[in-house]
Amino acid sequence: MAEDLFDSSDRLRTAGPLTCAQYVTFEEPLELACGRRLERVRVAYETYGELNAARSNAVLICHALSGDSHVASHYAGDDPGWWEIAVGPGKALDTERYFVICPNILGGCRGTTGPNALDPATGRPYGPDFPPITIGDMVEVQRRLIDRLGIDVLLGVTGGSMGGMQALQWATAHPRRVRAAIPIATAPRLTSQALALDVIARNAITHDPSFRAGHYYDVELPPDGEVFAPAHNIGGLAIARMIGHISYLSRQSMRAKFGDNRHRPPRVRSRFEKDTSVASYLAYQGDRFVDRFDANSYIVLSRAMDAFDAGAGRDLADRLAGAACRWLLISFTSDWLFPPDQSGEIVDALLANDRPVSCCNVRSDSGHDAFLLDGELDVYGPLIAGFLDRTFNGGQEVPEPEEDPYGQVTCHDTSIFHGRRLDYDLLERLLLEAAAGPGSSVLDLGCGGGQMLLRLKARGFRRLQGVEIDQRAVLSCVRRGVDCIHADLNDGLDRFGDGQFDFVLLSRTLQAVLNVDRVLRDMLRVGRRCIVSFPNFAYDPLRRMLAERGRAPESAGLLRYRWHDTPNIRFLSIADFEDYCRRVGAAVHRRVALNTERREEVTDDPNRNADLAVFVLSRG
Amino acid sequence: MAEDLFDSSDRLRTAGPLTCAQYVTFEEPLELACGRRLERVRVAYETYGELNAARSNAVLICHALSGDSHVASHYAGDDPGWWEIAVGPGKALDTERYFVICPNILGGCRGTTGPNALDPATGRPYGPDFPPITIGDMVEVQRRLIDRLGIDVLLGVTGGSMGGMQALQWATAHPRRVRAAIPIATAPRLTSQALALDVIARNAITHDPSFRAGHYYDVELPPDGEVFAPAHNIGGLAIARMIGHISYLSRQSMRAKFGDNRHRPPRVRSRFEKDTSVASYLAYQGDRFVDRFDANSYIVLSRAMDAFDAGAGRDLADRLAGAACRWLLISFTSDWLFPPDQSGEIVDALLANDRPVSCCNVRSDSGHDAFLLDGELDVYGPLIAGFLDRTFNGGQEVPEPEEDPYGQVTCHDTSIFHGRRLDYDLLERLLLEAAAGPGSSVLDLGCGGGQMLLRLKARGFRRLQGVEIDQRAVLSCVRRGVDCIHADLNDGLDRFGDGQFDFVLLSRTLQAVLNVDRVLRDMLRVGRRCIVSFPNFAYDPLRRMLAERGRAPESAGLLRYRWHDTPNIRFLSIADFEDYCRRVGAAVHRRVALNTERREEVTDDPNRNADLAVFVLSRG
Repeated sequence: MAEDLFDSSDRLRTAGPLTCAQYVTFEEPLELACGRRLERVRVAYETYGELNAARSNAVLICHALSGDSHVASHYAGDDPGWWEIAVGPGKALDTERYFVICPNILGGCRGTTGPNALDPATGRPYGPDFPPITIGDMVEVQRRLIDRLGIDVLLGVTGGSMGGMQALQWATAHPRRVRAAIPIATAPRLTSQALALDVIARNAITHDPSFRAGHYYDVELPPDGEVFAPAHNIGGLAIARMIGHISYLSRQSMRAKFGDNRHRPPRVRSRFEKDTSVASYLAYQGDRFVDRFDANSYIVLSRAMDAFDAGAGRDLADRLAGAACRWLLISFTSDWLFPPDQSGEIVDALLANDRPVSCCNVRSDSGHDAFLLDGELDVYGPLIAGFLDRTFNGGQEVPEPEEDPYGQVTCHDTSIFHGRRLDYDLLERLLLEAAAGPGSSVLDLGCGGGQMLLRLKARGFRRLQGVEIDQRAVLSCVRRGVDCIHADLNDGLDRFGDGQFDFVLLSRTLQAVLNVDRVLRDMLRVGRRCIVSFPNFAYDPLRRMLAERGRAPESAGLLRYRWHDTPNIRFLSIADFEDYCRRVGAAVHRRVALNTERREEVTDDPNRNADLAVFVLSRG
Repeated sequence: MAEDLFDSSDRLRTAGPLTCAQYVTFEEPLELACGRRLERVRVAYETYGELNAARSNAVLICHALSGDSHVASHYAGDDPGWWEIAVGPGKALDTERYFVICPNILGGCRGTTGPNALDPATGRPYGPDFPPITIGDMVEVQRRLIDRLGIDVLLGVTGGSMGGMQALQWATAHPRRVRAAIPIATAPRLTSQALALDVIARNAITHDPSFRAGHYYDVELPPDGEVFAPAHNIGGLAIARMIGHISYLSRQSMRAKFGDNRHRPPRVRSRFEKDTSVASYLAYQGDRFVDRFDANSYIVLSRAMDAFDAGAGRDLADRLAGAACRWLLISFTSDWLFPPDQSGEIVDALLANDRPVSCCNVRSDSGHDAFLLDGELDVYGPLIAGFLDRTFNGGQEVPEPEEDPYGQVTCHDTSIFHGRRLDYDLLERLLLEAAAGPGSSVLDLGCGGGQMLLRLKARGFRRLQGVEIDQRAVLSCVRRGVDCIHADLNDGLDRFGDGQFDFVLLSRTLQAVLNVDRVLRDMLRVGRRCIVSFPNFAYDPLRRMLAERGRAPESAGLLRYRWHDTPNIRFLSIADFEDYCRRVGAAVHRRVALNTERREEVTDDPNRNADLAVFVLSRG
């Protein structure tokens, strides 16, 4: 069956009315951003789980361009929803804990007022006369729905792609009504490339004579006056969908899907090309989409997406200035429609406002579709679940685990210590010593699973932010309620402002950094005080190893590797680092040298007797 | 003017007959790969420069999907050609030295027989009844033309995109008739992603009612029976072209072109969307293409491109087994339509046949269009020119330059020597000593500008191949006639076979390699003998520096850097390396230790007294 072969993110199989949808109609006119108004707006929505007594467990899911309210099945045997894998009892969006709401968006064609709804002024469907709408208009309709459901504050708003744009809009338009925003695979505005694909898709629709300039509704109107089944056979809409499908997949996922069978296409009935497997797939998806989606809706919604522009750089930061919720941004490495650096722009803008933020650029070959597929669900599922849980249970402490399960996995998260407490104790002591008072802010570069930041949280430090390169360690942070940016220190710290943090930590990481100058220079710019710890390469046993045995130093802990496989690529001594500080004009406020083998502080000739040094620095 | 703003690779401005084209008609029927035949084939072509007396200076340029024979202007005031920047007196393809031939391809619409030509059987244009053709059929027509021009052996065949596929086809179908093949931005077959874009483009054309299933020719036939100006206003062809344009650009180049002006579109007249700058661009390009190109031709040619499949892996290697010419593959980093790794597949297949090959993956933000733009001309121009020159003047020695201009630019091409001759002399001596006889083969990993290989060439070594990460050093190799692969050693040597080379060199590079194990393991697999040189970290002054001064060793030459900015990230001693060889079971055949400061060989305690070691190894 073609259906099996072509299973994809496109999980919507039916064009008929949604059996479990609920409806609410707002008779109060909706003033649109374009200056026009809709006299009456109906919203189709579905809910899952129960609203708790405190009305504090509601999560809003915003769907993407071609989605609808049916995010998951409601009972055994119900049609699967478009995010069935993530929404349900015990799933990432756990409907046993949360009250999940998913409305069909304004302008859609699946129950909420859109071009295929009756225009009360004419008694005919709006068709091409449906006014242009914005992401803001969509969110305004959702706000009315949330009001009607008696919910004052949403625990979370999430969505992928255009759904992520709605989540952004919610957090900025209604900052006091959202506790956690989780925009997924999204952007502050489309790339020119994505915009171009939309333009071509619409050209394909509008150029098709069977589109009849949008005046193609000739079906019998159902008794309630809504047009549900837009089966108008507009080939241009199929072509638009084909363009969409290419942009949702990645080169890698297309190779996996079609590479080996390129000349053995599954048989499909279609008016389109079908003599290669990829042609057959596109023909099938295109035809199927025409059966379930409305061409006018496609145009209205894709135009709303194209017009969404939260700005760039300073403008974007200003736009996000008031967005006081917690943030988790999720992107996917192979997504070229909403590339990861666009999620990064949002992260940067939030950091420019000194907002706590977490992000993860999930390794994936699945392209934009990744957020709908189960291949990466083991990463983004726990990220969402953990983040919501920490938001929901924010007041409760997370017990610090005895052992950090992620401590062994990052290339640089290695310990010179036989136990790790000594290290934490010292850093904590130095921080408390140097802190202006409680509530200081700390940026931890290479924060691992967030153990240090969690400790500092317990000590009353106010603003804590981690940076970590390892995806699993980021997940560990998020599940512990530690805000963590997924990034490579070698790319520098441009996203942080001058003096943004009271403290910047670089703990046992310097020796694994390639761009030492850049990282240290940026640290000194960003932190009012910087704390750097590193293994001392001039520790006496290491000196002797080279001097007497003529071998590259190897030791326990941080230096337990051999010359050819060590993650440590920078070798320096305490004296070298002091020279460096002098040369770049950094002020050294404190230097503590440790012998971790003997578990003691070293004051006598530290460059020979210490195996670890901790410096407290600032820009001179 | 929109024209100015939208200037791009699309340099064809007119739809009329080409004033400087020459024509030749072959009355002998052409048997096509599909089993059908064309009774009569006419070819339009243009030539530049003079064929020399030896008929040895002819270069064939194969154009891409929408190109034609007008590759460059013929006189001041002539229309510029599509590769005007690269073809002409003193340019990369120097028409003062070479006789350049560019024919319009079979199936095209600019003078060579194609769907818009008269079918002698009906007296009407072929239209949709034009038979399906292949890249092989195109090349067969070009072969007839080359025969007619009295040329037995082509100095070179080059072309980008689909033109590169023709160059591949030439080299495999007529191996004795091509001295140098230069396929640019091409692939052994399309990716599934590129194939999908073609499918959608054709669907857009064939779905357009004005296409009339290809029976749309209703213009007056010109007196000579050829249809030149296919102005049929088929919107689907414009949409196909829009899809093409997106695939020719990169995300980066689109941002540069449209990012800042996205909401300030230049005004164009068009039936298509034009309210954003990218829409306006696409509308302009789409409309313009319809004025100059033929929809049936587009379908025939893109189908030929889609069907081209030189295989993958072993199949591709078999296909290229007989291709005995010299090879230069050029790709562009941001090209996602013909991604660089597809050129890499061709390189791998040639290496699997132990063919000499050079390749360069040119750094570029311009996407697939890069080969038509002048942004990267300073790299790919000299590459082409140098490669052709070395092919043309193959017998003449290239004088070795006194100083290597590229010696200072690669991150690992650093010298421990005050002069470099000592190093070369030693390596050359060891190679000659260990060589089974003259004509041994050598792979030089991290070959820099090719100095060592050039020396060995003079000494009669037969098969010499370099690998180098630095683009400028690759260019230097190619200009000297040294075959060089542009690659990162850290990616390993999978492209080379077991025991493929008599010798593999890794000279003064090991200390800058991250994946030491992988590179050494692969070397030992690929080379019957391996020669590895590296700085000895246990050299006495370095030991003392750490032991007595407590500082990371710094020295002249290879160790002239400081701990925080050195390209050297692996520190090992002679003793460490010997341990390593024992552990991995490598046999050490020779070890020469040098003190390069004193310019002498060291036999007394080399691990203390030598600053450089050279090992001759093999898999144990």
